Amino acid sequence: MGNGNGNGNGSGPEARAVVVGSSRFETSPSVLLRAGAGFRLEDVDPDATPGFSGTKEEGAAALLASDGELDALQERLFAASRVGARNSVLLILQAMDTAGKGGIVRHVMGSADPQGIHHHAFKAPTDEDRAHDFLWRVERQLPEAGIIGVFDRSHYEDVLVQRVRGLAAPEEIERRYGAIRQFEELVAGGGTRIVKVMLHISKDEQRDRLLERLDRPDKHWKFGPGDIDERRRWDDYMEAYRIAIERTRTDDAPWYVVPANKKWYARIAVQQLLIDVLHAIDPQWPAPAFDVAEQRRRLAKS
Amino acid sequence: MGNGNGNGNGSGPEARAVVVGSSRFETSPSVLLRAGAGFRLEDVDPDATPGFSGTKEEGAAALLASDGELDALQERLFAASRVGARNSVLLILQAMDTAGKGGIVRHVMGSADPQGIHHHAFKAPTDEDRAHDFLWRVERQLPEAGIIGVFDRSHYEDVLVQRVRGLAAPEEIERRYGAIRQFEELVAGGGTRIVKVMLHISKDEQRDRLLERLDRPDKHWKFGPGDIDERRRWDDYMEAYRIAIERTRTDDAPWYVVPANKKWYARIAVQQLLIDVLHAIDPQWPAPAFDVAEQRRRLAKS
Repeated sequence: MGNGNGNGNGSGPEARAVVVGSSRFETSPSVLLRAGAGFRLEDVDPDATPGFSGTKEEGAAALLASDGELDALQERLFAASRVGARNSVLLILQAMDTAGKGGIVRHVMGSADPQGIHHHAFKAPTDEDRAHDFLWRVERQLPEAGIIGVFDRSHYEDVLVQRVRGLAAPEEIERRYGAIRQFEELVAGGGTRIVKVMLHISKDEQRDRLLERLDRPDKHWKFGPGDIDERRRWDDYMEAYRIAIERTRTDDAPWYVVPANKKWYARIAVQQLLIDVLHAIDPQWPAPAFDVAEQRRRLAKS
Repeated sequence: MGNGNGNGNGSGPEARAVVVGSSRFETSPSVLLRAGAGFRLEDVDPDATPGFSGTKEEGAAALLASDGELDALQERLFAASRVGARNSVLLILQAMDTAGKGGIVRHVMGSADPQGIHHHAFKAPTDEDRAHDFLWRVERQLPEAGIIGVFDRSHYEDVLVQRVRGLAAPEEIERRYGAIRQFEELVAGGGTRIVKVMLHISKDEQRDRLLERLDRPDKHWKFGPGDIDERRRWDDYMEAYRIAIERTRTDDAPWYVVPANKKWYARIAVQQLLIDVLHAIDPQWPAPAFDVAEQRRRLAKS
């Protein structure tokens, strides 16, 4: 299907990176969760915890235990960029409402240095955005070298909500799958490792989470009546996700479908995906561009 | 001096906020560290820990203990902005090299949700920046409502390094003090609480920290020979800081001189400054703009 040439048996670069990564997973989510040929969304159980056999408490402990690894790798990525390395990472988060995008940002990205993170939440496009092609506003938010970019929603909204709600013509939606592949290939070619994540929850789980937002006054601001309208189109959304993933999963920009009914699992899984791509980049501390002994002497006299 | 009408006895809005804040300080840094009338930089001991009588370990524990308070206040600030509240916070960090700006961002801001932080490090101005007035690039980085903005360096470089190195004419430097006061008054009037921090280290402490950067291969990338050139102008910089603080300390945008030889103290002090302004804003959870019972019924049927 298209140039979607990812695969399900983990022979891509992410798979090789796993060996270097943390050993808390029996097999890394980079392998287990990657959407490959013949991918079927309905085969992914939102309650599952692939590769991790521990309890919720062990999962929470595993998240904290790898905070330092993510942070240290990110700092090295940043340091290497100061002397010309062009690598960056782009994490794209897509999901139904309440699936936990915000929790990923807070609990996974929150452990890294804010100076090394560029977070952007894509809202409804502005008039200026709409006056351009749909990828224009996305390009402007790409991470600089040395930075981990995090997209809370993305250009995939243009083939998800726009498809489900018929906001663009079918031919235009069709054009976009190809445009996205070309765009992501271009971005990856410039040194950005792209990690695309769909957080996958069940419809029942969403009901419970929306109910919690209605039950708690400190959560009311996260709820809008429109959330229920979208929920009613659940099956259409699942179909739109399936098609989008199938059409845009490439080696340059693989998709990972992360079971997310258990928030703790989704967090360690995404954390591991990031650790794996950072190990694959393997950024190095720059060699000094000065004579250390000479600078020590200058410093002593200053 | 000018309209710099801050004061040293803590009767401003920040002082009132202290009562609500954490009690780990005998008196809040908002009071103790604020540059007031007759401010003299040489009166600030970089080794001191004003208002905090605990040990380094107790300081580190105090930082972690208030992580949650800062995070919770920031979330409420963000929530309130969703229904029209216009408040934001802007933390401006200025300091000599190695004074710990990066550590503040990592260890203080790092505890808040990345979604609620806008961090920007100002580098040397680009050609486009230079084609505009010096405040142009600053205005573009101001935090949106609901967000805590953090400036790592700022428009103050235009009256610090530019003054010390004679990069702008004396009349232009003179004009900028007034322009900064007007600009910050405008920003504050729009709902942004401005907190200006000078992290104050001693010249000896800087030598030790630069030496550490030379001793550790994983720190080499943070060092440049030019750092020693700047260090040689230490007294000129202290004078430029003194004048800048004296000319731009206002009730709208107070300056705090934070002793920073002890990193742990500087971190809890800045954390407390932020907690105090957030308490002063006192953001509230928004009331729901929908009928909760009706939405529960809709949800049950969906």
